Amino acid sequence: MVLEKINQTGDIKKISPEEYPVLAEEIRAFLIEKISRTGGHLASNLGVVELTMALHLSFDLPKDKIVWDVGHQSYTHKLLTGRKAGFDELRKYGGMSGFPKRKESDCDCFDTGHSSTSISAGIGLVAARDLQGGDGYVVSVIGDGALTGGMAYEALNNASRLKKNFIIVLNDNEMSIAENVGGMSEYLSGLRTNQGYTSFKSGVEQSLNRIPGGRRMADRLKKTKSGIKQLIIPGMLFENMGIIYLGPVDGHDIGRMCDVFRQAKRFQGPVLIHVLTKKGKGYEPAERHPARFHGTAPFVIETGLPAQKQKKANYQDVFSTCMVKLGKRNEKVVAITAAMPDGTGLKRFKNLYPERFFDVGIAEEHAVTFAAGLAAGGMRPVFAVYSSFLQRAYDQVLHDVCIQNLPVVFAIDRAGLVGSDGETHQGIFDLSYLSSIPNMHIMAPKNKWELSDMLKFAVEFDGPIALRYPRGEAWDGLKDFRKPVAYGKGEVLYEEEDIALLAVGSMVKTAVEVRHLLKETGYSCTLVNARFVKPIDTEVLKMLSEDHKLFVTLEENVLSGGYGEKVRDYVQERLPGVEVLNIALPDAYVEHGSVELLYEDAGIDAQSVYKRVVERYIACLARRDVPKGGA
Amino acid sequence: MVLEKINQTGDIKKISPEEYPVLAEEIRAFLIEKISRTGGHLASNLGVVELTMALHLSFDLPKDKIVWDVGHQSYTHKLLTGRKAGFDELRKYGGMSGFPKRKESDCDCFDTGHSSTSISAGIGLVAARDLQGGDGYVVSVIGDGALTGGMAYEALNNASRLKKNFIIVLNDNEMSIAENVGGMSEYLSGLRTNQGYTSFKSGVEQSLNRIPGGRRMADRLKKTKSGIKQLIIPGMLFENMGIIYLGPVDGHDIGRMCDVFRQAKRFQGPVLIHVLTKKGKGYEPAERHPARFHGTAPFVIETGLPAQKQKKANYQDVFSTCMVKLGKRNEKVVAITAAMPDGTGLKRFKNLYPERFFDVGIAEEHAVTFAAGLAAGGMRPVFAVYSSFLQRAYDQVLHDVCIQNLPVVFAIDRAGLVGSDGETHQGIFDLSYLSSIPNMHIMAPKNKWELSDMLKFAVEFDGPIALRYPRGEAWDGLKDFRKPVAYGKGEVLYEEEDIALLAVGSMVKTAVEVRHLLKETGYSCTLVNARFVKPIDTEVLKMLSEDHKLFVTLEENVLSGGYGEKVRDYVQERLPGVEVLNIALPDAYVEHGSVELLYEDAGIDAQSVYKRVVERYIACLARRDVPKGGA
Repeated sequence: MVLEKINQTGDIKKISPEEYPVLAEEIRAFLIEKISRTGGHLASNLGVVELTMALHLSFDLPKDKIVWDVGHQSYTHKLLTGRKAGFDELRKYGGMSGFPKRKESDCDCFDTGHSSTSISAGIGLVAARDLQGGDGYVVSVIGDGALTGGMAYEALNNASRLKKNFIIVLNDNEMSIAENVGGMSEYLSGLRTNQGYTSFKSGVEQSLNRIPGGRRMADRLKKTKSGIKQLIIPGMLFENMGIIYLGPVDGHDIGRMCDVFRQAKRFQGPVLIHVLTKKGKGYEPAERHPARFHGTAPFVIETGLPAQKQKKANYQDVFSTCMVKLGKRNEKVVAITAAMPDGTGLKRFKNLYPERFFDVGIAEEHAVTFAAGLAAGGMRPVFAVYSSFLQRAYDQVLHDVCIQNLPVVFAIDRAGLVGSDGETHQGIFDLSYLSSIPNMHIMAPKNKWELSDMLKFAVEFDGPIALRYPRGEAWDGLKDFRKPVAYGKGEVLYEEEDIALLAVGSMVKTAVEVRHLLKETGYSCTLVNARFVKPIDTEVLKMLSEDHKLFVTLEENVLSGGYGEKVRDYVQERLPGVEVLNIALPDAYVEHGSVELLYEDAGIDAQSVYKRVVERYIACLARRDVPKGGA
Repeated sequence: MVLEKINQTGDIKKISPEEYPVLAEEIRAFLIEKISRTGGHLASNLGVVELTMALHLSFDLPKDKIVWDVGHQSYTHKLLTGRKAGFDELRKYGGMSGFPKRKESDCDCFDTGHSSTSISAGIGLVAARDLQGGDGYVVSVIGDGALTGGMAYEALNNASRLKKNFIIVLNDNEMSIAENVGGMSEYLSGLRTNQGYTSFKSGVEQSLNRIPGGRRMADRLKKTKSGIKQLIIPGMLFENMGIIYLGPVDGHDIGRMCDVFRQAKRFQGPVLIHVLTKKGKGYEPAERHPARFHGTAPFVIETGLPAQKQKKANYQDVFSTCMVKLGKRNEKVVAITAAMPDGTGLKRFKNLYPERFFDVGIAEEHAVTFAAGLAAGGMRPVFAVYSSFLQRAYDQVLHDVCIQNLPVVFAIDRAGLVGSDGETHQGIFDLSYLSSIPNMHIMAPKNKWELSDMLKFAVEFDGPIALRYPRGEAWDGLKDFRKPVAYGKGEVLYEEEDIALLAVGSMVKTAVEVRHLLKETGYSCTLVNARFVKPIDTEVLKMLSEDHKLFVTLEENVLSGGYGEKVRDYVQERLPGVEVLNIALPDAYVEHGSVELLYEDAGIDAQSVYKRVVERYIACLARRDVPKGGA
């Protein structure tokens, strides 16, 4: 085993070049074996085994720095920097993160998770190095998909000003090449209507053919993923070519990559190296289904099939079915995704109503303002987006949708704790950042049926409206509680007295358990499904205030700016006889781990909540026995 | 007067072409005269007089739609669509907005204010049109500066997929051409190190020379504003040239622009028309100082000088002076702006420490992650940014700065109500969107001296920290109160009992007045300068709870997620004997008008607050006389 020789950073430099292919093979086998047990990102990691090896052979870590865009492709990097043992507990609670983490290793120079940040961060590291008279190379590794994100362009614009060394590795994975040949030919035929362009184009083609390797480059370029689109005003072309381009180079040929990296180091100023890799490389099921093996649950290596069958429908399945129905019923309904047609469940809508489906690439900002334009033009856009990625478009929601009060539906997926992806992906801020926005409305369904009901309500609602629901399995409890969704109204599930649990979305399930525990120990307890986080249902609060002493709000979101504070504001102003206990996530980032463990850790599992409610209720009773005025 | 014939949309089509130059002249005189009285955006509007006329001559509004990027250049458009009379009350309370507003005219098809949104919105309008089988042209007018914003690129990427008509007008104003010739020559010399590039470049140059007008284009392109930077990988160039380019065309030649627009209408698919205009055109002081006349206060037409002299220092002046000092004292301090070196007051820092100053263009997302990279590399970056523009980088603050707990200072300018720019520019959400972010710290100074003290504190603080301060004149009250800034600590200004006013930043001044009114009418009143919004000073709350019955929080921010809710949370949980009254802005967008009128309208002026405090305190006393338990 060559892999046995790789125990700490730099060990790869000690093995002989003849061993490189063996090591690559062993790393692949290692990753497949480990990820088949733990789950994790597979296809992208298999694609960059040789690229990562070549980087580690060519650069000196931690003095040289590598910023991994998104970061889910950093497994080989982790292997080569002394973290082999971590793979047994990959993405588990307390175990190794699936993303680069500065606190995990001094070879992780910048934490990533969301797309398109690596060039900005890299430029910052370069500027810091140069201002302090330091040396060392900075390398940002970015995928072709991540280049569709606007901030990558903002960064490239700024990179061209750098006078000193900065290396961008464009990891262009071949997998989606086949799909996009059409776009190129259409583009070419469109150009033919303009004589200027035609001659311009052929002139450039001739130029390319004069460059060594230019013909291959031209062929290759014709096939590049359509996601990377680019305005080409000829002028901009010249002015701004402040970034030196090297490549394309075969991303599975370690020797050639090392040559190019050597060449790149000699340039003063920013260099971009175009590397061609194959997603899923070396594991046939992943090569065939790279999207399915992007992030995977544990699987059977021989077949590539999931180790455990999905038992119940996911929220995404429910969303998928409902969108198809709504699309059929209402021709104004259009669906938008930012590069997540599979993850969000929009694929069936896409297949049935391709003209009303828009995948804008990793471009949440554009997605939201595009939706605003569609709504201003009379359509009913539904933007399906992960909670943590909608953070990217906070200003667009506030500035382009809500000021104009436009009917855009935000289907916020992966809201609440998502588990093993960790800090960067937890969807625990959306109730806060959306609540502060005037004209916004926010809902959260308690179970699978309510998701459908709310989505139907939303596409008919005349203003900005969001519904947020969790990752994964859709809860099928409380099936018989299906009061029609009405504007701003909660749903009283069980009505008793003394304690009222007011639960948002996913927390209704928890609240049912809490209520059960309270009942078992002799407490009387009302349970309300909040349904609307904005506006809150003040009628139900008033009604409950008559025979309840304590309101308990429950939400899978941070406290600041969430549901609980709104209830507390109202109660303290209008219903001063009632106390409020807010159950929410603490003001802290939540690391990776199973959602159940994270719930316990944050104190929002049923047992913890039960204890806090009882404790508070007892204190509340004690206070009520003391006359006021003596504070 | 030709302008007298222009009273409603379409009137411009009724005048003869010979009258166009006269009308342009009259419009300029009209704008200069009006804006000299009201203040407003001048230079950009003078630059697009002929462009706007040509658009209105070539298109049929409201059937055809024009989206104005940023929108401050829409004055001539307003004039040509029946809003001449509105200019007397331009940007005044209840008067005409300085930006396009759908509610003002059916010729304003999409509201704008922030940069780089127009192409996204335009594509949305195009898609809506096509899905509904409509017709009519959609035109997005975007400046060269706005093209540095990432979302413009995201939009261009998506525009290239459109099969139907969409016209982008790139309004390239010549004013900054002169500055940037250096960048081009550097770029060219850099390229010479690479043989491939050199031959590629000269090939393209030859191609350009074969295009009719290509040589002029090439010359022009050499001078283009360096803000528009662009990665040019030759391949992307070809694949993505799905946008037809026409131009450049003289933006002050109405006939030629009409010809090009006519040509553009014939294309199927997206067309970009490169129009060259001169900012400030026709008014010499504005031509000479386009930045000063970008947004101007009332001025004397003959001299171009302000109608009123600035009496006191602005917060921006104070910030400017302090940054220069800090830059001298600490070599790790670097300053970043997103295209606002003048507005934020960073110009002196730039002149003194050019190597530690970064203007990244209109690119807030990049700015924040770049700052994170600088901080990870050991520097102390200060990002000076307007409150409403930092909204663009919410995810970058959360994901790139705060997860890693990096020492980035956010100097948040224009926080609170900004006045005449209206809804899109009010800085009334920052306390909310920043509070929800773990690891973030937030301060607000009460006066000019405290801004300096806090900035000094911030650059030495080991974590993410923001300080927010208003637009305009720096308050110089409470000069003698200058207790050193300490982590998480408020400043007790006056200590009495019963009522405690807890005021954030700009509201300290108001609170002083409120306290005066309360004292006059016989109330006892403590006044605390909160200083820290996150974390709140719980010690001072505990201390005050002993002899106060009512805490009144005051902040120039919406309620949800702001300072007041944090105080309320703590008090209700820990100090149940005390009542809390939150004075904050309502959950609504605030239109344009003078800040004083807006304060009154929102009920946060001293008189309104005084009344609410008295009312609440009386109710509070009444409640305390009733024994508890009888709710």
